[in-house]
Amino acid sequence: MAIAYNAHSTTTTFAVMASSPPPPLVIITQDELKKIAAYKAVDDFIESGMVVGLGTGSTAKHAVDRIGEILQQENLTNIIGIPTSMRTREQALSLNIPLSDIETHPVLDLAIDGADEVDSDLNLVKGRGGALLREKMIGCASKKFIVIVDESKIVEHIGGSGLAMPVEVVPFCWKFTAQKLELLFKESECVAKIRTCLKTGDVFVTDNSNYTIDLYFKKQIGDLKAASDAMLRIPGVVDHGLFLDMATTVIVAGDHGVMVKNKSSLS
Amino acid sequence: MAIAYNAHSTTTTFAVMASSPPPPLVIITQDELKKIAAYKAVDDFIESGMVVGLGTGSTAKHAVDRIGEILQQENLTNIIGIPTSMRTREQALSLNIPLSDIETHPVLDLAIDGADEVDSDLNLVKGRGGALLREKMIGCASKKFIVIVDESKIVEHIGGSGLAMPVEVVPFCWKFTAQKLELLFKESECVAKIRTCLKTGDVFVTDNSNYTIDLYFKKQIGDLKAASDAMLRIPGVVDHGLFLDMATTVIVAGDHGVMVKNKSSLS
Repeated sequence: MAIAYNAHSTTTTFAVMASSPPPPLVIITQDELKKIAAYKAVDDFIESGMVVGLGTGSTAKHAVDRIGEILQQENLTNIIGIPTSMRTREQALSLNIPLSDIETHPVLDLAIDGADEVDSDLNLVKGRGGALLREKMIGCASKKFIVIVDESKIVEHIGGSGLAMPVEVVPFCWKFTAQKLELLFKESECVAKIRTCLKTGDVFVTDNSNYTIDLYFKKQIGDLKAASDAMLRIPGVVDHGLFLDMATTVIVAGDHGVMVKNKSSLS
Repeated sequence: MAIAYNAHSTTTTFAVMASSPPPPLVIITQDELKKIAAYKAVDDFIESGMVVGLGTGSTAKHAVDRIGEILQQENLTNIIGIPTSMRTREQALSLNIPLSDIETHPVLDLAIDGADEVDSDLNLVKGRGGALLREKMIGCASKKFIVIVDESKIVEHIGGSGLAMPVEVVPFCWKFTAQKLELLFKESECVAKIRTCLKTGDVFVTDNSNYTIDLYFKKQIGDLKAASDAMLRIPGVVDHGLFLDMATTVIVAGDHGVMVKNKSSLS
């Protein structure tokens, strides 16, 4: 995916900065947008001495790379990273980022992570990268939760991308749990599918040895808090990819520049 | 524990039948009371052709034994059992009870299971036997949920026994989850302890490869539904031993006979 990118636009809050006269356009890929959002989060929010949650996924990966880079440059010191997945742990170790866990550091200064969907109230869908439970545990433990996305992740309503909303379930009788989830969201014409590994076709197993049921909605799911509680009440559901009232800041990189939206700015 | 048992008292609803003149007393053990409740559940509720959830624990074990016995006597035919644990599965197999699961039979005619606490609204604490999640899944799938207990399990309020209320959690950073649970029930002066195996001292691992955090309360926990939802919202909590609005009948065997309490009779 290639997007026309305004290289001269600058950071702003809520609205894109207008620049005049029109600057030259350069072609920038979706991955480069992810990198822009990730670098901005690290450069603007991380300070020496912080305990930082390290997200999982293609956007969060850039943030971890950036932390490693400025640690090596010694522009940042005394950082402790808390990885949200085994994959991120390996990446951070390869970059010599000192690591710990939420048992040793139950309160994090901030976490930086990607998201699969973001709505106008900063509600999120996360977990397509396969690490929703640990991401949620670490996000909940963080004073600030900085979400980094390219603009393709912005949706009018949660579920609106037509892509998966993941639910982590215990393997025992997962088909029964999937039926319960479809029934719960019957009015949204929900289809539940077990996640499989692209390469092998085997059922995908999370870092917690659970399975993932991906939910696809044709219609809006309505009250998100009610939907969250209703899913959690189904025995067999461990957690789900709806992250409500968690993000404190969302950084969106798009073809018109970078937009920063803070929770405190919400009406 | 030995309890004076009135061998002549008969089944009743809500109240103990008075018998006159006073019958002779015999000494009956707690295990015999469990057996009386279990046999009554099987004999009164199970009919040929039913799909039946088979509970876990010292009381439910008697019910499974009784089902095996009357199947062998051919007083009951065409029963399918759905076990709530690996342990119960092995017991049922040894008794030649035909078995299936909730994926094949998503609607059960009834389930028979024990409980650790029962309050006057038929709310339960379950899971001291280590199988709360599967018990809850199977209980939820059952048209009728028959709970069998000896009278020591009757409490004025949930948590009132001073014994454990179990919570199944993912092993990842379980100490962090335990802290969150203690904090949630701070006003009830909750103490959270990881369950260990009596014999080895190792952490007890559930059939779903999770851990169990046992909660002990010094004061009442208040609104049970709010407590249930609040626990489920903690990332890392898989499920808990509060079973609300699930039991349709509770059979209590005590020193004055057997009492049957039905949900439909509640005001």
